[in-house]
Amino acid sequence: MSEEKKVSESVIEMNELVMPNDTNILGNLMGGNLMRWMDIASAICASKHCDAYVVTVSVDHLSFHEPIKLGDVVNIKAQVTRAFHTSVEVYLEVFTRGTLQRKTRKSNQAFFTFVALDERTMRPKDIPAVIPETEMEQKLFDEAIVRREMRLVHSGRMKPSEATQSKDFLNA
Amino acid sequence: MSEEKKVSESVIEMNELVMPNDTNILGNLMGGNLMRWMDIASAICASKHCDAYVVTVSVDHLSFHEPIKLGDVVNIKAQVTRAFHTSVEVYLEVFTRGTLQRKTRKSNQAFFTFVALDERTMRPKDIPAVIPETEMEQKLFDEAIVRREMRLVHSGRMKPSEATQSKDFLNA
Amino acid sequence: MSEEKKVSESVIEMNELVMPNDTNILGNLMGGNLMRWMDIASAICASKHCDAYVVTVSVDHLSFHEPIKLGDVVNIKAQVTRAFHTSVEVYLEVFTRGTLQRKTRKSNQAFFTFVALDERTMRPKDIPAVIPETEMEQKLFDEAIVRREMRLVHSGRMKPSEATQSKDFLNA
Amino acid sequence: MSEEKKVSESVIEMNELVMPNDTNILGNLMGGNLMRWMDIASAICASKHCDAYVVTVSVDHLSFHEPIKLGDVVNIKAQVTRAFHTSVEVYLEVFTRGTLQRKTRKSNQAFFTFVALDERTMRPKDIPAVIPETEMEQKLFDEAIVRREMRLVHSGRMKPSEATQSKDFLNA
Amino acid sequence: MSEEKKVSESVIEMNELVMPNDTNILGNLMGGNLMRWMDIASAICASKHCDAYVVTVSVDHLSFHEPIKLGDVVNIKAQVTRAFHTSVEVYLEVFTRGTLQRKTRKSNQAFFTFVALDERTMRPKDIPAVIPETEMEQKLFDEAIVRREMRLVHSGRMKPSEATQSKDFLNA
Amino acid sequence: MSEEKKVSESVIEMNELVMPNDTNILGNLMGGNLMRWMDIASAICASKHCDAYVVTVSVDHLSFHEPIKLGDVVNIKAQVTRAFHTSVEVYLEVFTRGTLQRKTRKSNQAFFTFVALDERTMRPKDIPAVIPETEMEQKLFDEAIVRREMRLVHSGRMKPSEATQSKDFLNA
Repeated sequence: MSEEKKVSESVIEMNELVMPNDTNILGNLMGGNLMRWMDIASAICASKHCDAYVVTVSVDHLSFHEPIKLGDVVNIKAQVTRAFHTSVEVYLEVFTRGTLQRKTRKSNQAFFTFVALDERTMRPKDIPAVIPETEMEQKLFDEAIVRREMRLVHSGRMKPSEATQSKDFLNA
Repeated sequence: MSEEKKVSESVIEMNELVMPNDTNILGNLMGGNLMRWMDIASAICASKHCDAYVVTVSVDHLSFHEPIKLGDVVNIKAQVTRAFHTSVEVYLEVFTRGTLQRKTRKSNQAFFTFVALDERTMRPKDIPAVIPETEMEQKLFDEAIVRREMRLVHSGRMKPSEATQSKDFLNA
Repeated sequence: MSEEKKVSESVIEMNELVMPNDTNILGNLMGGNLMRWMDIASAICASKHCDAYVVTVSVDHLSFHEPIKLGDVVNIKAQVTRAFHTSVEVYLEVFTRGTLQRKTRKSNQAFFTFVALDERTMRPKDIPAVIPETEMEQKLFDEAIVRREMRLVHSGRMKPSEATQSKDFLNA
Repeated sequence: MSEEKKVSESVIEMNELVMPNDTNILGNLMGGNLMRWMDIASAICASKHCDAYVVTVSVDHLSFHEPIKLGDVVNIKAQVTRAFHTSVEVYLEVFTRGTLQRKTRKSNQAFFTFVALDERTMRPKDIPAVIPETEMEQKLFDEAIVRREMRLVHSGRMKPSEATQSKDFLNA
Repeated sequence: MSEEKKVSESVIEMNELVMPNDTNILGNLMGGNLMRWMDIASAICASKHCDAYVVTVSVDHLSFHEPIKLGDVVNIKAQVTRAFHTSVEVYLEVFTRGTLQRKTRKSNQAFFTFVALDERTMRPKDIPAVIPETEMEQKLFDEAIVRREMRLVHSGRMKPSEATQSKDFLNA
Repeated sequence: MSEEKKVSESVIEMNELVMPNDTNILGNLMGGNLMRWMDIASAICASKHCDAYVVTVSVDHLSFHEPIKLGDVVNIKAQVTRAFHTSVEVYLEVFTRGTLQRKTRKSNQAFFTFVALDERTMRPKDIPAVIPETEMEQKLFDEAIVRREMRLVHSGRMKPSEATQSKDFLNA
């Protein structure tokens, strides 16, 4: 893995408008539709960092703080946090603003993980390392290893006792 | 919270067929579309357990083990794991089968968390406790508290040092 | 046609939630959208019975007893009734329940007919015979021949006078 | 029911282009999507005849003669056949033409039945009688009573022995 | 370009019903959805005139006179105006009628331009000349050259001073 | 109209990924789908400039320079050009990049015009004037009056001879 890239090189932004088509029975944006937009935004970001086709392998800690209303403008920001050999984690923040409101509020955040595919073999390929620059980027980088361990534990691919980074993190 | 319900009372199953409409640029089911189906399946399940309207508040540890192909039959099973006052966690398993294959493989799993809303006030309302019966249901019930703590930690609503159940779980 | 299969071997169930996206101008589930779901459910069922790709060749006696509302949970059950050489008829029942209602009502039924295709030639291929076991399955099996004759008559491929099974049925 | 209307007064035509979005896994127009278009075309036709909102109550003898391909132009013609108090039957013919072909072929036909709703009460209302003028319109008018009886028989609302018009039709 | 064709040979009509799915946050037909229907209608028309696959190259003077409501029947009429070597302009008129209204109003018009593609090379190919017959068709034919010049000017492919036909038109 | 706003205050950016769902029969992004995205992007931009609900009233000089492929990342930039009492024109540029390409190309441009609506009366309301700052913004501002005159001429609301600004522009 000879290459390294800054977080800022692949940051991506997406703006959408919540139409009747996107709402649930309470008249709010349906969770599943937001996830679909987040998947596209984070795939564009990951693909830009990796210069490769990417496929989603995990979604973690996607939280819905408050409902997004019909007519709201949804602003999705995606940035990579850290790469692990053939996978890269993307951090997403969703900001929402009513058409007639000037104030924006944060409505969601999530971590999507992607694997990059080699164009010819369609097998996983190495991903450039992520260079965090800001304090926030460093924090996201550091905690990525904890999120990764917990993913492995909850999908049965790592024993709880082996999650040493997570233990350190919780005991810090 | 006077009422209690068994897991089996709200188990739900959904079958879908992957159409061209649902695929990504590699010809596989797009992650965002699967999430949309999972959101609907788990909402039906949570709503049945709560006898109430529910809204998604969190998605955790959604994993994609292998690609789902155009033409595959997608079978989604949703069951509640545990209730916490006004929220309930739902465990989803996705099984996939090619049209001409008899063998089914597990392609995904995830944990979706919902809040139940009071019909009149649209404010969160208490949710019946979940009674686990099988060994698997008990394991999902027990570990739910760990997933909950990690959700709170990664969204900045709990300090790592306060995640006592998670520490016990990792040190067990 | 050496193979025979029981009805129960290919029964399939589908659950959907009526979203704003699916409604007509009266706020009810649009008939065409329900048909789309029924087509998918019955195709999965027929495909499972035939172990083959299937294509819809006919829809008969699809009835709408009462409107399905926004927010209703739609439960579709599909089972084969009888095979005729290269075609198989599927019986569908649709049950509907409001989110906050425990009672389910039957809202629709229909008969979809499929032809199975040979995987290589894409020409119609023989379909395993259907073995009815319950009284209801036997009744659906017996009357399938009448529905078939009337399909042929109304599409101009059989003269009314040749529909001998239908005459017997009506005169019974 | 003081009013009477000619078939030609509510004839409607619809043209659609089969996009990737509309296809099934064999690359042909998905049956369920065609049904959705037919439902819209026949609803416009029935609504025009009745000067009222209409809801689909039945679909009969919808046949698929040959596959419709990606890129085909789909031409749907809808005309009323006969009214029965508060319901009216619509006859649909679907013609298909490849983009680079001058020749059109008939690919489907069907009978959709609608109930008209009173604008204020949303209860079924009387529908103008249909005046058939051509030989074809007269044949569709005459046989409508047979299709209606068979609908009632197969949905369990009429005993086979009571379907007297159908017996006469088959014995003619 | 040996062939010539009358306008009437490729006139096409499309009817659609505005469903909740198609509306914007004010409950009217979303502009973008109408454009999608107009694109399909004009592509069918252009393709019929050219006997070839066509791709949209320009949309001009698409006007929205008044909102189209949920439940309205939308009637789109498309006719060619004039061909320029490898491109052809299509004139679209949109008429709208409420379900319970007998009166139709014109709600939109637009000019879509298409290039025809050779089936083998996928390169632009010559298009049959358009023969205007009515006075309206002649007017649309004559002014097409002005619209073409202004397209070229506003996309920076023609200097304003070279738009000689437009000058004549404005000074007439 | 007491308020004035800079162009930069309402610039908006949208990123989309072309999925199979969005393509036409040649495997490229369907023109109508791009228009739908452009309508949303420009509506968000106009709405931000006007601090009001907006409705599309016109689309002009939308050009398609080269096909956008399945899998391409589509980047839409929208900025206001000039306000006329109750309407505002938005300039859109579309840039496209293949997933595995670093180079971006301009594929489309267009002018969308919107009317702002008063929140209570839903009648057109005055719009803040646009302050152009860069040379490009000034050019778009100046030529907006010409595009407006030609819109009026081609929709029959202004006589060619009255389009004095356009004459000056062409004779300059």
